[in-house]
Amino acid sequence: MAVYTEIDDVALEAFVAQYDIGAVLSCKGIAEGVENSNFMLVTDRGPYILTLYEKRVHERDLPFFLCLMEHLAARGLPCPTPISGRDGKALRRAAGRPASIVSFLRGVWPRRPEPKHCTELGRAMARMHLAVADFPRSRANNLSLAGWQGLFEACRERADEVQPGLAKSLERELEHLAAHWPAAGGGVPQGVIHADLFPDNVFFLDDKLSGIIDFYFACNDAFAYDLAIALNAWCFEPDGAFNITKARNLFQAYGALRPLNAEELRLLPLFARGAALRFLMTRLYDWLNQIPGAMVRPKDPKEYVRKLNFHKRIKDASAYGLDGAK
Amino acid sequence: MAVYTEIDDVALEAFVAQYDIGAVLSCKGIAEGVENSNFMLVTDRGPYILTLYEKRVHERDLPFFLCLMEHLAARGLPCPTPISGRDGKALRRAAGRPASIVSFLRGVWPRRPEPKHCTELGRAMARMHLAVADFPRSRANNLSLAGWQGLFEACRERADEVQPGLAKSLERELEHLAAHWPAAGGGVPQGVIHADLFPDNVFFLDDKLSGIIDFYFACNDAFAYDLAIALNAWCFEPDGAFNITKARNLFQAYGALRPLNAEELRLLPLFARGAALRFLMTRLYDWLNQIPGAMVRPKDPKEYVRKLNFHKRIKDASAYGLDGAK
Repeated sequence: MAVYTEIDDVALEAFVAQYDIGAVLSCKGIAEGVENSNFMLVTDRGPYILTLYEKRVHERDLPFFLCLMEHLAARGLPCPTPISGRDGKALRRAAGRPASIVSFLRGVWPRRPEPKHCTELGRAMARMHLAVADFPRSRANNLSLAGWQGLFEACRERADEVQPGLAKSLERELEHLAAHWPAAGGGVPQGVIHADLFPDNVFFLDDKLSGIIDFYFACNDAFAYDLAIALNAWCFEPDGAFNITKARNLFQAYGALRPLNAEELRLLPLFARGAALRFLMTRLYDWLNQIPGAMVRPKDPKEYVRKLNFHKRIKDASAYGLDGAK
Repeated sequence: MAVYTEIDDVALEAFVAQYDIGAVLSCKGIAEGVENSNFMLVTDRGPYILTLYEKRVHERDLPFFLCLMEHLAARGLPCPTPISGRDGKALRRAAGRPASIVSFLRGVWPRRPEPKHCTELGRAMARMHLAVADFPRSRANNLSLAGWQGLFEACRERADEVQPGLAKSLERELEHLAAHWPAAGGGVPQGVIHADLFPDNVFFLDDKLSGIIDFYFACNDAFAYDLAIALNAWCFEPDGAFNITKARNLFQAYGALRPLNAEELRLLPLFARGAALRFLMTRLYDWLNQIPGAMVRPKDPKEYVRKLNFHKRIKDASAYGLDGAK
């Protein structure tokens, strides 16, 4: 929940004049998106989203993100389409920050995801993973093993403030993951993944998935790891209970379009642990390093401690409703 | 900058179904409005504003605010029109809070107000003050003398944390204001005033005033006091310098439609001190009582200490560019 950078009305008008999208009628900061400043920009042609990229997003990565959205949108995925200015460029500067305008997507994100949403999500994820086959760019995942290790070092001393014994248990988990995490190219299909497919990044309209947003963590990694992130984000109830119906819907809908191979099935519990650790680590870091006045309510790292512990107890992917995985 | 209360997508659909405004296409929290949770609600009929009223706004006052907006909109003032549901009611509940939907206003608020904006503002304020002549409801101003005194008592002990000597100087100022503040009905025209006409509550489109929003401080008080609030909010530069051109534009445009009488002119410097103290006191209170996680960056009370000191040095309203006031 953000808007860190304000844009001046005079600067806004000059900025929008570089595009062929009509005249500004309104521009309001949106209380969504933790990483960037987002505005709902209404012109006489309709609504758009204006994003000012904040420091957590590296400027050098922006062409990757914008090209990815353009690539996916061109293949019919309901994701924002970057709008190019009259000079043909989609990325420029406003209010001292890198900035872009993308198409507005209809829909509302589900506050309480239901099994039907997970079916829609699984189908869209498979389409997305199939659609990147010919995407020419790549971006390393800086929030994989090495990144988790770095965050852990930064949090190690104070981790037990959040939960006694947490530092020790994270250390052991990192050792386990380092020992078993597959090398890229070792039989697990890889490609560009979204890597942050939480419910607030997915819109629905009349129960149909109508939008996928916020591609600013997208990177190259195992497709099954993307599924593991979604599993954690969508298939646990607010009380922490795992909902196997949601997981089954997610995997079945996905597998109908892109079946998981045996190695992906075998590694799914490990990926789920890694995915839990990834969000645990960033939440822990943000929790211990709150910025006064940042207007972001930090998310509870303990939610992901519980999810991690759930996956540690799993024997195989059959626990996720994948019946052929025993 | 807010959104304190989230609204569930299922609850939202049920809520909007009570209105004849079409189907929900999108609903995004707006990072504007410090007191309430505001959402830009887009239906297939167009955009609307959904407001969930938070605790700082008393529920008993809501009919006053909504009727006032309706009254002003009906008289051609560009302010939000409350939308009634199929049951004829404009006020109902959503997400456990009182809630309303109002019309969407085009325009962008001026980040750096210019003299031309002050002309537009003066004209609109005069129209607004003339338009409330036949408004049948009233609401006492709980942020006048007695309210300031109460806030001062709550801040007295810690005021010097913000600026050494502030407590003593506020005490003296309150004594001065109490001794000279006019009683209601004593020759100073009164009526319903907006009482919070800051630049972020006024929209412009092509340099024309296109919207006045946020009537949730509206109350009965002297019209000239409303002008004094606007004077403080619009006619000082970011470096603290008073801009007499802006003030002259504000008062001239206002006076062309509703001329100030001699008593109003005489009292204007006093009203300006009171208006400065009013925002000084609420900012001071909020500064000393920050709510962790409130996602509101508190405004600097010292800005209003400086404005108050400016008005204390004024002899008469000629200092505001009112040439007939000597």
